Amino acid sequence: MKSPIPDYLHHVLEVARPNDGGAAAAYIETLAKADTSKMAVALAMVDGNVYSAGDDRVEFSIQSIAKAFVYAMAIEDSGLEAVLKKIGVEPSGDKFNQLSLERNTNRPMNPMINAGAITAHTLVVSPTATLHQRTERILQALSRLAGRQLRVDEEVYEAELRTADRNMAIGYMLKAAGVISCDPQEAVRGYIRQCSINVNVQDLAMMSSVLANGGMHPLTGEQMIPQTSVRQVLSVMTTCGMYDAAGDWVSNVGFPAKSGVAGAIIGALPGQVGIATFSPKIDERGNSVRGVAMCEQLSRDMGLHMMDVSHVARSTVQTSVSTLVDGEHENHNKNCERKVIVFKLRGAVRFPGAERLTRALSRELGESDPMDPGSGDHRNACAIVFSFRHVYSLNFIARRLIHENITRLLTEHKKLVIIDPSSVLEWDPAKAKEGRNPMVVKDDTEARDYIGGTGCHAVSQDPEW
Amino acid sequence: MKSPIPDYLHHVLEVARPNDGGAAAAYIETLAKADTSKMAVALAMVDGNVYSAGDDRVEFSIQSIAKAFVYAMAIEDSGLEAVLKKIGVEPSGDKFNQLSLERNTNRPMNPMINAGAITAHTLVVSPTATLHQRTERILQALSRLAGRQLRVDEEVYEAELRTADRNMAIGYMLKAAGVISCDPQEAVRGYIRQCSINVNVQDLAMMSSVLANGGMHPLTGEQMIPQTSVRQVLSVMTTCGMYDAAGDWVSNVGFPAKSGVAGAIIGALPGQVGIATFSPKIDERGNSVRGVAMCEQLSRDMGLHMMDVSHVARSTVQTSVSTLVDGEHENHNKNCERKVIVFKLRGAVRFPGAERLTRALSRELGESDPMDPGSGDHRNACAIVFSFRHVYSLNFIARRLIHENITRLLTEHKKLVIIDPSSVLEWDPAKAKEGRNPMVVKDDTEARDYIGGTGCHAVSQDPEW
Amino acid sequence: MKSPIPDYLHHVLEVARPNDGGAAAAYIETLAKADTSKMAVALAMVDGNVYSAGDDRVEFSIQSIAKAFVYAMAIEDSGLEAVLKKIGVEPSGDKFNQLSLERNTNRPMNPMINAGAITAHTLVVSPTATLHQRTERILQALSRLAGRQLRVDEEVYEAELRTADRNMAIGYMLKAAGVISCDPQEAVRGYIRQCSINVNVQDLAMMSSVLANGGMHPLTGEQMIPQTSVRQVLSVMTTCGMYDAAGDWVSNVGFPAKSGVAGAIIGALPGQVGIATFSPKIDERGNSVRGVAMCEQLSRDMGLHMMDVSHVARSTVQTSVSTLVDGEHENHNKNCERKVIVFKLRGAVRFPGAERLTRALSRELGESDPMDPGSGDHRNACAIVFSFRHVYSLNFIARRLIHENITRLLTEHKKLVIIDPSSVLEWDPAKAKEGRNPMVVKDDTEARDYIGGTGCHAVSQDPEW
Amino acid sequence: MKSPIPDYLHHVLEVARPNDGGAAAAYIETLAKADTSKMAVALAMVDGNVYSAGDDRVEFSIQSIAKAFVYAMAIEDSGLEAVLKKIGVEPSGDKFNQLSLERNTNRPMNPMINAGAITAHTLVVSPTATLHQRTERILQALSRLAGRQLRVDEEVYEAELRTADRNMAIGYMLKAAGVISCDPQEAVRGYIRQCSINVNVQDLAMMSSVLANGGMHPLTGEQMIPQTSVRQVLSVMTTCGMYDAAGDWVSNVGFPAKSGVAGAIIGALPGQVGIATFSPKIDERGNSVRGVAMCEQLSRDMGLHMMDVSHVARSTVQTSVSTLVDGEHENHNKNCERKVIVFKLRGAVRFPGAERLTRALSRELGESDPMDPGSGDHRNACAIVFSFRHVYSLNFIARRLIHENITRLLTEHKKLVIIDPSSVLEWDPAKAKEGRNPMVVKDDTEARDYIGGTGCHAVSQDPEW
Repeated sequence: MKSPIPDYLHHVLEVARPNDGGAAAAYIETLAKADTSKMAVALAMVDGNVYSAGDDRVEFSIQSIAKAFVYAMAIEDSGLEAVLKKIGVEPSGDKFNQLSLERNTNRPMNPMINAGAITAHTLVVSPTATLHQRTERILQALSRLAGRQLRVDEEVYEAELRTADRNMAIGYMLKAAGVISCDPQEAVRGYIRQCSINVNVQDLAMMSSVLANGGMHPLTGEQMIPQTSVRQVLSVMTTCGMYDAAGDWVSNVGFPAKSGVAGAIIGALPGQVGIATFSPKIDERGNSVRGVAMCEQLSRDMGLHMMDVSHVARSTVQTSVSTLVDGEHENHNKNCERKVIVFKLRGAVRFPGAERLTRALSRELGESDPMDPGSGDHRNACAIVFSFRHVYSLNFIARRLIHENITRLLTEHKKLVIIDPSSVLEWDPAKAKEGRNPMVVKDDTEARDYIGGTGCHAVSQDPEW
Repeated sequence: MKSPIPDYLHHVLEVARPNDGGAAAAYIETLAKADTSKMAVALAMVDGNVYSAGDDRVEFSIQSIAKAFVYAMAIEDSGLEAVLKKIGVEPSGDKFNQLSLERNTNRPMNPMINAGAITAHTLVVSPTATLHQRTERILQALSRLAGRQLRVDEEVYEAELRTADRNMAIGYMLKAAGVISCDPQEAVRGYIRQCSINVNVQDLAMMSSVLANGGMHPLTGEQMIPQTSVRQVLSVMTTCGMYDAAGDWVSNVGFPAKSGVAGAIIGALPGQVGIATFSPKIDERGNSVRGVAMCEQLSRDMGLHMMDVSHVARSTVQTSVSTLVDGEHENHNKNCERKVIVFKLRGAVRFPGAERLTRALSRELGESDPMDPGSGDHRNACAIVFSFRHVYSLNFIARRLIHENITRLLTEHKKLVIIDPSSVLEWDPAKAKEGRNPMVVKDDTEARDYIGGTGCHAVSQDPEW
Repeated sequence: MKSPIPDYLHHVLEVARPNDGGAAAAYIETLAKADTSKMAVALAMVDGNVYSAGDDRVEFSIQSIAKAFVYAMAIEDSGLEAVLKKIGVEPSGDKFNQLSLERNTNRPMNPMINAGAITAHTLVVSPTATLHQRTERILQALSRLAGRQLRVDEEVYEAELRTADRNMAIGYMLKAAGVISCDPQEAVRGYIRQCSINVNVQDLAMMSSVLANGGMHPLTGEQMIPQTSVRQVLSVMTTCGMYDAAGDWVSNVGFPAKSGVAGAIIGALPGQVGIATFSPKIDERGNSVRGVAMCEQLSRDMGLHMMDVSHVARSTVQTSVSTLVDGEHENHNKNCERKVIVFKLRGAVRFPGAERLTRALSRELGESDPMDPGSGDHRNACAIVFSFRHVYSLNFIARRLIHENITRLLTEHKKLVIIDPSSVLEWDPAKAKEGRNPMVVKDDTEARDYIGGTGCHAVSQDPEW
Repeated sequence: MKSPIPDYLHHVLEVARPNDGGAAAAYIETLAKADTSKMAVALAMVDGNVYSAGDDRVEFSIQSIAKAFVYAMAIEDSGLEAVLKKIGVEPSGDKFNQLSLERNTNRPMNPMINAGAITAHTLVVSPTATLHQRTERILQALSRLAGRQLRVDEEVYEAELRTADRNMAIGYMLKAAGVISCDPQEAVRGYIRQCSINVNVQDLAMMSSVLANGGMHPLTGEQMIPQTSVRQVLSVMTTCGMYDAAGDWVSNVGFPAKSGVAGAIIGALPGQVGIATFSPKIDERGNSVRGVAMCEQLSRDMGLHMMDVSHVARSTVQTSVSTLVDGEHENHNKNCERKVIVFKLRGAVRFPGAERLTRALSRELGESDPMDPGSGDHRNACAIVFSFRHVYSLNFIARRLIHENITRLLTEHKKLVIIDPSSVLEWDPAKAKEGRNPMVVKDDTEARDYIGGTGCHAVSQDPEW
């Protein structure tokens, strides 16, 4: 069977292709003479699988898209606090190459405009590093993100350097304002060199998927960018990535994105997918015309909007009651007949799932409430089972809340068994309060054995705990 | 067992309480004399369960928080297109009561500043409606959202009207610019009346949970706000809800929010939770000082940041192979021995899950690829099983992609069985291409029966399909 | 003989007439339907003589031109200090109807934009005056300036009131900012009423000539506006009168001016002339297209630029030496032979003239300086004569400096005679230091008599002192 | 006798001295360590006489004051049109070192902010000139203006170059915007070099007096700056010279001025005086605190406000009638008795004086008007005399108007005699219409002779024509 996904991507390309608006960036000779008929789109899954369509091997300079990753490197090399001192996070409502700083703080408004990006560049390696050290660090890091050795397009670099007056102006402004401490000429040359690295849409999709994957490289499993940096980068891409159209982009597309003047756009939706599009003609804001159209369609078709409410998690907790009976002597051993209450969660459990469990625990095991018939019915259950068989992840608030529930139950001297074959609960017996630990087991059998004692087994409508 | 959640909320309150910064809004007498010692926090789950702590029954005027909901009503009553023509969606970087319009479009920048909110107010019911019709519509809608009858605080209303000069200026500016068509005095009075509706944090948390719940009321199940409006409202809250601190808020807190000058803040994270905090002292931006602190802590503790990457969905597809054998005559019926390949998904399946399935199908059932040992191994399986037993939701792109896979498999004359006890797949036999339909069943037994034929049963390491 | 001046004004009209640019102000119905073929120009001399050409009796509403005079009234009624507290004097670089205040001071930028003009209106009579009191005061004052009873064009007033939303917005903004204290509706209505007063170019030229004439009405001699107010009004007209084209206007035209949206412009050059032009089509800045062209030509042709350097005052002091001889016995009375040194000034003497006199006194009557042959030659002159026969005015610094010179000479026991037939020196014997007074006389004869004593007369190449 | 003017200047110094506000410019080391106790003031008359007080020989760098003169040089070298294409004339309302250009035209707002001044610098000599050519041209031109050889303070130059980042930013911005075409580094170095020229207050006062003197050097009589450039420079100084305080300065001081960051201010009032003050402590706008105070006092005391209305020219035309009689045979020759009407002007005649003459001519020589008793009385005078004996200048509009009157009178076959000993009228017989020329004579006697014919003489109350 052939995957329908490449077909879909071709469809996306062909829908956008007739849109002939915009023009190749005029200010750099090598960009101006780009082949504007080229188009490509790529998706990279968070496990490293890449789909692409169109001219997916055509290379172009990365331009401003590098800003997102260099910002992450600046945070890594200089620390978030130092970076925030030098570069703001507010959308500017202005052109990307504006010559102005935040009124009160005298910082560039954000790292996605040139002033902020040049500043971020100088915070890579260290403020006293050489041009070569910085550009080498950036080239190698971007190469690792892309999964192949990238190279600088020297022709683009030279051409941009010849028309770098505006950026030089920004560089000197930053120096004058005390934002950067190195030679402005060095800063701008380094910045332009980072812009001149060649990539294709597959590279970009792969790089974006690292952001979508919490900073871990989907192929190598290496944590390339710390999670807190990823969050920071994606936040800034959300509000500042598409220049002066923040609100429009968030409303219409709704995933963090960054565009480059050579015609590429990247996007990343956490936990889902990295996206890259390419088409050289850009609009007056500097965003690829067909690229924006493709991103809008991808978002619409694929439900990639971060505020998408088409799916709301529901009912992730099930409760069931099993009765323990003496397996051998079913009729003789009446006092063996005891109730076991089982709480089963499933899926990726975040706060709402843990809250549901908490609520179910309170209802079933708490006092009987006359207003709520059935509440408190199982407060005398001989054992409690939490089943995480179908839980494939817990986030930290869910884990913390469940840990707290466990501690409280144990304090009440409940017998508690936890079925956790994938060890998602991360219960550390050493940290248990007063040494009270639940019984953590791998499967039903172990659980039933532990609860039932020799010769007992559970009888239940629920075939599986 | 007592739930730890209220304890947690008390903890949040007490951590924020020592922060004594800010001051009650000075410009309205009744706000200025607010009891600044009051504090409260509430969470409302998307199923209607509400937790709260502190002065959770203390009432205060809703103020600017109404803007979010009135924007939704304007969209409902006048249509999104008409609303977007009159009100932009860009963060303004300016004060909430600024006297300016978007340079090119002559619209208020966004619906969260007063100019946009007054405009939105006039689009409720219809541009020709009376003041009474609009304010009544708004009061009743907010009451339904809160789940109880709200009322206007006439004292606040009268006080605000006395100091409404700035808003009157905005009203006349809007009229002069052709943004509103009704009497500016009427527009401003109506707007102030909507600001003067009294609520408490429980009301606000419940109202927010409607946004978090895709517009459906958690208690009544009524679709109070269409999903597309919810997306629009949350998008605008993301970039414009906290006035001139969009970037800061997205970076630090990361859920859509809206603040009111009486000291309340609401937040909503789709699919998870509605949040409300209250503490009257506000900072120079108009946001409650302790409220911001509480939201930051809730976001941090509970992983509520929209770009949170602490949890990335993984490996939601499992494949297994079962062997069909003749149950009665195991040794005689060799040609009965046939393979069945089973694809199992779990959790809330979105694009990445469906993509995984697609990829698994291509690998297992496609041509053998010398570079990928094992690929194509099962292309001769006698039957294919999709198990959605543990899938509790599919979003539309996932569903669409799986439908496309099914169609392709059937076109290739595969025998396909789908175990879908909760009917998440929504397969409509009437729409099947050339009448080719898979067999959709409720459980393993039915599936095995269908595949095996009389007397055969599947033998597998996998106890469950 | 027929005066060539009217011919010249006709010429000015006809040169400007082909310029068909601009359009009648669209926002008020009665202005929009103005007869755009009408054109007029008028000059009013500072003695009240008025020249005009074209449609010099056609009436139109005064509009913003009233701002200049109402600003003067505000200064008169509330005091300059109070007015400066409420209204700035800086050019705004923005549209006349902008909705903004000076960043630091929260004042309207200047009294020539609507915000400042509405504020000035409320400072007429007193901040607590009624609408009627203010508009009546303004109507009567403008009538006295024009030299005839003006009236409000009620049709224009009603039409402007119907489209007053922008001004209402400004009014409420001013109230909100605490700039005005009365009801904004009253302020705006009064302001619009002042704009709706009908005038023709002859009226306007006459009104302007009052400004050119130091505030004194050329016809009645009444001091209608105090000199300090005139200076303030003309200063503000210089930098703010032509809206956002201050620098352009000062460079190209160079006299203080004010335009109105009905198509009139006034100008005033101190001591010279009041100017008015009329042609209804205005440019996008709100200035009459032909009016601007006519003002440029008048300035160019007539040397009305305030920085005009075509004429620089020179050599206003002449010195001559006369010899006193005994008239009867010319040969016998040798000891009668004495030198008298005469210092003659002429014209309108300001600082440079007085400085020249001072310098001449120092040179002639001071010590002999070897570097300056001839210096000190007359330090033994028996008498000194100052002749002001041809001086028609002294400004106060010139007078003060000459008074100081007189005092110093008398302290040195010089015999000093002053010929001052027009009493321009304003020497007050009562204020003389230690009672030392010069002899002030009407003509040569008196002077010679006084110096010569009986029987002596002066022999000189200079026929006249 | 000792001149009181130096005493006055000492007085001005001492009044300002206690004002201890401001601080020496901090951004350049050599300026920061200036001796802030130094103070000086100087006045230069338009004939080259200079008064000064205080530390009048202390040298300091000219800084931004050079901008005014370099703007004049740019106009001279590149033409006004080319300069206006590159540099605007509007006040900016912003800091002197702002990084922005006029929105629509992309030019620096004016030549007094750094962006405009750097641009003006590049227009000196020619856009392709070398740094050395430009700085040499400027140094020599400023030296000639000052009347002595000036020199660059190399220490200041080096220090400013070290902190030139902001100006470098401006330079690159200008290059990027296509405003300058040379290397930005060269432009900025040259600009800084021009700022580093050392002067004292006497130099500056002399330089200003050239502006006050219509561009002619008071000492050498050389026309150093064309009159049209002087007008342009003074206009721009009026609206932009004192940075963001245009309106304030025009209202309070009222003469064109320019300040420098080393603490100097120059001012110039056409036809009157050049002014310079010095005191190193500057306010936040960059203007010397004591310098501003001294300028305010000088303006107030000396009536130097350009809108000063303390003196208005009046009654500059006198008419008198003389009767011609036969000198020898007074009683016999009755038909000799004829009237001569004499029109006498005096002072510096501009348009109002010429208009008065025109009006008098019309009244006296026109038709009799029943409404104006006495009008037309002398239309039959046998001769008309214009006396310019006491006229020391005519501006061109006055001359043009009087020429026109003469032509009209001659067309009416009037006998016209003009007494013009100083040849102010500049009547060119060659250009007379149809060869009709008036009789131009040197004095009364000639005039009377010409009119009277042999043996007649005029009898008149007026002893002098």
